[in-house]
Amino acid sequence: MTHQNAPHVHLHRETFVIRANEVDAQRRLTLPALVNYLQEVANNNVRLAGMSVYDLHARGLAWVLARMKLQIFAYPHHGEAVVVKTFPSAVDKYQFYRDFRVYGPSGQLLAQATSTWPVIDLAKRQMVSVPDFLRVFTFGGDEAPLPPAKGKLLPPGPDPHQHVCTVGWYDIDVNQHTNNAAYFRWLVEGMPPWFLAAHQLAEVDLQFRNESNLGEAITVQASPLPAEPLEWAHRLFRPTDGKDLATAQTTWRPN
Amino acid sequence: MTHQNAPHVHLHRETFVIRANEVDAQRRLTLPALVNYLQEVANNNVRLAGMSVYDLHARGLAWVLARMKLQIFAYPHHGEAVVVKTFPSAVDKYQFYRDFRVYGPSGQLLAQATSTWPVIDLAKRQMVSVPDFLRVFTFGGDEAPLPPAKGKLLPPGPDPHQHVCTVGWYDIDVNQHTNNAAYFRWLVEGMPPWFLAAHQLAEVDLQFRNESNLGEAITVQASPLPAEPLEWAHRLFRPTDGKDLATAQTTWRPN
Repeated sequence: MTHQNAPHVHLHRETFVIRANEVDAQRRLTLPALVNYLQEVANNNVRLAGMSVYDLHARGLAWVLARMKLQIFAYPHHGEAVVVKTFPSAVDKYQFYRDFRVYGPSGQLLAQATSTWPVIDLAKRQMVSVPDFLRVFTFGGDEAPLPPAKGKLLPPGPDPHQHVCTVGWYDIDVNQHTNNAAYFRWLVEGMPPWFLAAHQLAEVDLQFRNESNLGEAITVQASPLPAEPLEWAHRLFRPTDGKDLATAQTTWRPN
Repeated sequence: MTHQNAPHVHLHRETFVIRANEVDAQRRLTLPALVNYLQEVANNNVRLAGMSVYDLHARGLAWVLARMKLQIFAYPHHGEAVVVKTFPSAVDKYQFYRDFRVYGPSGQLLAQATSTWPVIDLAKRQMVSVPDFLRVFTFGGDEAPLPPAKGKLLPPGPDPHQHVCTVGWYDIDVNQHTNNAAYFRWLVEGMPPWFLAAHQLAEVDLQFRNESNLGEAITVQASPLPAEPLEWAHRLFRPTDGKDLATAQTTWRPN
């Protein structure tokens, strides 16, 4: 993993005023809306460097999100302005590392994330080693990056809570594959409603494993870890071929 | 229906830069994202008049959207800035009428809508006559309002295309009921994918009929009108009690 400290870092900041459709019944910013903010600043960060999703399409390539570990310390509410910052933090042979910070109206740190972004060949739908023309980013932002997420995620236990979702028309993005935020939405919607009503998500570590396609049914399994009622393991898989689409671990706190 | 021409009209405008998660696979603004923009400017319009959803909650009341007729002349794309304008256009005993206009980057009219907004008693979940304290709005905006949507919507035919959706955790809004944009999403997701891939929505007239609740399954039926392959009739109902949640008619054009 190369880590450079260059004078011109690719740092990008945007302000989002939280809309009514981005909050839950408790007026708190939802997880899918937050993930869409992160995705948006990441898109704009690479776009301003001439390496947008469309620039990569023109070369038959695409950015994909492989893993994201997100910690949420406090939730902002409807109507509040949050500042979202991102910077590429490192690169190795196969992927970029990218950090995120989310600040509230008085500058407090509300959330932070580390993530990994390999590049795929669009025709083969396969990962490629990071091409040289993408090795233009400078790293490190204006603060120390988070340690990258590591380690294998635990699977749900033997008798998990189970839920079925379908990949809908609007879940498909400009890469012709399922939007990343959809997996975070399905993960939460695959939790028991009585648990969601009493808790808020404190941390999620999610690994993307395989792509899903329009119209496919997805089974979402979730169960608390043994003796850890506030830590859950999640698995999203396609029942027709048994392939895992995403696995995740989450940590919750009471409301 | 009272129609006033007052010197201080309640007109509200906001600019939205279209985000990656708000476009479809063709980079076009999605219908749910557009409806959320309209909802957002309507919310902010009443909020600036001291009559927000939260102000009404404090009095045990809520705004609800009863019917919206939306015409889309051209779709804006990812990254473009659109200006969305709204103004209350009239009021009668039971509801407000509200207009919307959406303008593209060079000022062209991209979309327009007329809508009706009754007020409900939150405890009884029943419509009430418009209370006096809400009769503070001035009407008419800076242009002639559209004629309100009228007439009964035709039902789908005898052998409709059928699709099942579920009310998810994030479909529930601050009114503790299903977000309006969800019905527009379900309506489109209840169309055959081969049709969606080749057409774009030109017009939708949607009537909200009953509320839905978290976890409920919803059946979406759709069929083209006899001898009108580009005009469809839609019905969203709850199979457990057979109640209609929304009915709609749409008009499409080839891509």
